[in-house]
Amino acid sequence: MIQQYELSLPSFPRGYHIITNHLLSEIGDLPMTGLMHVFIKHTSAGLSLNENADPSVRDDFESFMNKLVPENDPVYSHIFEGSDDMPAHLKSSLIGSSVSIPIHNGRLNLGTWQGLYLCEFRNHGGSRKLVVTVIGEDKG
Amino acid sequence: MIQQYELSLPSFPRGYHIITNHLLSEIGDLPMTGLMHVFIKHTSAGLSLNENADPSVRDDFESFMNKLVPENDPVYSHIFEGSDDMPAHLKSSLIGSSVSIPIHNGRLNLGTWQGLYLCEFRNHGGSRKLVVTVIGEDKG
Amino acid sequence: MIQQYELSLPSFPRGYHIITNHLLSEIGDLPMTGLMHVFIKHTSAGLSLNENADPSVRDDFESFMNKLVPENDPVYSHIFEGSDDMPAHLKSSLIGSSVSIPIHNGRLNLGTWQGLYLCEFRNHGGSRKLVVTVIGEDKG
Repeated sequence: MIQQYELSLPSFPRGYHIITNHLLSEIGDLPMTGLMHVFIKHTSAGLSLNENADPSVRDDFESFMNKLVPENDPVYSHIFEGSDDMPAHLKSSLIGSSVSIPIHNGRLNLGTWQGLYLCEFRNHGGSRKLVVTVIGEDKG
Repeated sequence: MIQQYELSLPSFPRGYHIITNHLLSEIGDLPMTGLMHVFIKHTSAGLSLNENADPSVRDDFESFMNKLVPENDPVYSHIFEGSDDMPAHLKSSLIGSSVSIPIHNGRLNLGTWQGLYLCEFRNHGGSRKLVVTVIGEDKG
Repeated sequence: MIQQYELSLPSFPRGYHIITNHLLSEIGDLPMTGLMHVFIKHTSAGLSLNENADPSVRDDFESFMNKLVPENDPVYSHIFEGSDDMPAHLKSSLIGSSVSIPIHNGRLNLGTWQGLYLCEFRNHGGSRKLVVTVIGEDKG
């Protein structure tokens, strides 16, 4: 009924990256019907679902989010870990640290244009740890 | 234990719309105890829980989110699908593409003022597809 | 398989507060493997995961979010419940009204720096109600 996997992503540069297929290659078969919960164990990166086709969408995410949550804002007091640190915490709570995706017929039931984004908010975030929890059953 | 439904909403205009009762009318009986996950299969619309009473709240969502994530921002490069497209992608990740609601005694255990919002970010988004996954059991 | 708890938090002042241990003290033993869903039954407060160590991060959340979603913005029409009300609704949908956390070996599988934040957006929000739904099983 419940399968759980902990995995480490390769290091990604700051920005927005599609990891749907990488994640599926790291876990076992999905049940027929259910839900996949993907969780990131960090407070300076996030997970989201968004456009999987045109890479300009991911570029615009990086540009816009940097403008929405700027570095070196004078209101920040938490500044000793680098100018990218506090904005990364804020972006993490705005974007979120998990996504849940329905499973139908043993596959993720995503929309045509939906892909899973790793949102790397730090300049040098390194390898990020995910926990994937699959709740399901094998009736069709 | 797990019930799953895929449904198509009627077309809604750009803005924020309460769909709680519509959604409940399209699915079967809820279990006694559990969780209902509602997922939207699109990258330019979102789902959220917010005030279900005064419609001025939904109007203010539309006004404020348009100011927070403006059209024609000079940082956007993904512009060929219309000025409402890239803002719709950004809003979708800020608001989120799913909500999960506890079920208690066979009913959604929402707060008094909570309703489920369809957040339609496109000018002509058309009919949107939802997947509802109910995980539950019938002990009280 | 499914355990559910409804609980009332003590009143917290406006701001961001770590409630991980308080919440765990109010519920029963966790299963070996599963998922914990925490839901807030309000539209002017939120739940998020973020840094659990340096309190300056929580201070900066309060300062930055007040700047991102200002009071008395001229676009607001929903103003009769106080200048902190409409911003609280907006922040609630931007931050979110639930979090889901994986359970491994009978414990929350949070990252080292992750804590559960109650995000109190009102000046006098009072006691807030949470619903905790635990879906799990006892195989290791």
